[in-house]
Amino acid sequence: MNMKKKLFMQKAIDLSLESVKQGGGPFGAVIVRDGEIIAAQANHVTQHNDPTAHAEVCTIRAACKKLDTFDLSGCELYTSCEPCPMCLGAIYWAHLDKVYYANTREDARDTGFDDFFIYDEISKDIDKRMIPFEPMMREEAQAAFTEWDKLENKIGY
Amino acid sequence: MNMKKKLFMQKAIDLSLESVKQGGGPFGAVIVRDGEIIAAQANHVTQHNDPTAHAEVCTIRAACKKLDTFDLSGCELYTSCEPCPMCLGAIYWAHLDKVYYANTREDARDTGFDDFFIYDEISKDIDKRMIPFEPMMREEAQAAFTEWDKLENKIGY
Repeated sequence: MNMKKKLFMQKAIDLSLESVKQGGGPFGAVIVRDGEIIAAQANHVTQHNDPTAHAEVCTIRAACKKLDTFDLSGCELYTSCEPCPMCLGAIYWAHLDKVYYANTREDARDTGFDDFFIYDEISKDIDKRMIPFEPMMREEAQAAFTEWDKLENKIGY
Repeated sequence: MNMKKKLFMQKAIDLSLESVKQGGGPFGAVIVRDGEIIAAQANHVTQHNDPTAHAEVCTIRAACKKLDTFDLSGCELYTSCEPCPMCLGAIYWAHLDKVYYANTREDARDTGFDDFFIYDEISKDIDKRMIPFEPMMREEAQAAFTEWDKLENKIGY
């Protein structure tokens, strides 16, 4: 295997180990562009009181800040564990080119994390989920989409 | 319909409309606990250069900051549009009790947003996705999970 790839993943793994020592979740991630590390972050859910602060989300946010963009096309992500559905969504919204992962969602489940459960929930019909989802006021909410459609200089993402 | 629920959703819709005027995405969300608004945010992807700054994620982060916790059990979310997979994952990690939504993922797709596409991608086998996912170094990455398992005072989430 390409030695540079190994070094990038080892950095993600090192961050995951360091995070455990500091009381955080056992996850780390690295974003690379043109063979150079742009951002590298561990999980910060409990330290920052932020349930969205998974390693991948933190790293995407840091890379976007550094590159001054919301579009990470041309970048690749190395993560110490297969991304959960939240992070997978973030990866798509960030338009990353490729993802390398080490531990699997099954490993995460066996260590007490809910990734697998959430993957199951996401593919269910909206009325079959553990968290109830109730539709209301769709007609009133259409206004924002109508206004958005009318915009000539809108910035898509 | 309960008048208070309508007011909470109207606030989310108002935020989505205001966001369009300010050049942001047409989305807003509100988090409520015991009949009181804890946090209310619009989409900030383009203004903050943060692809994870969807209305629901921003509102979850703001509510957690306000309540000084990563666990929003006891809270409900009102969102002007059905959450995308990233936001759905965030909702599960935040342990919200219930979600009310107005526009649907189909409405979002028809207005040019990728929610539907990402729902499709998430349920695919990992080797069938548009963004390539490559496994590597699983053995090396297990160390962080092993260390986590050993911790006696770990903080789960």
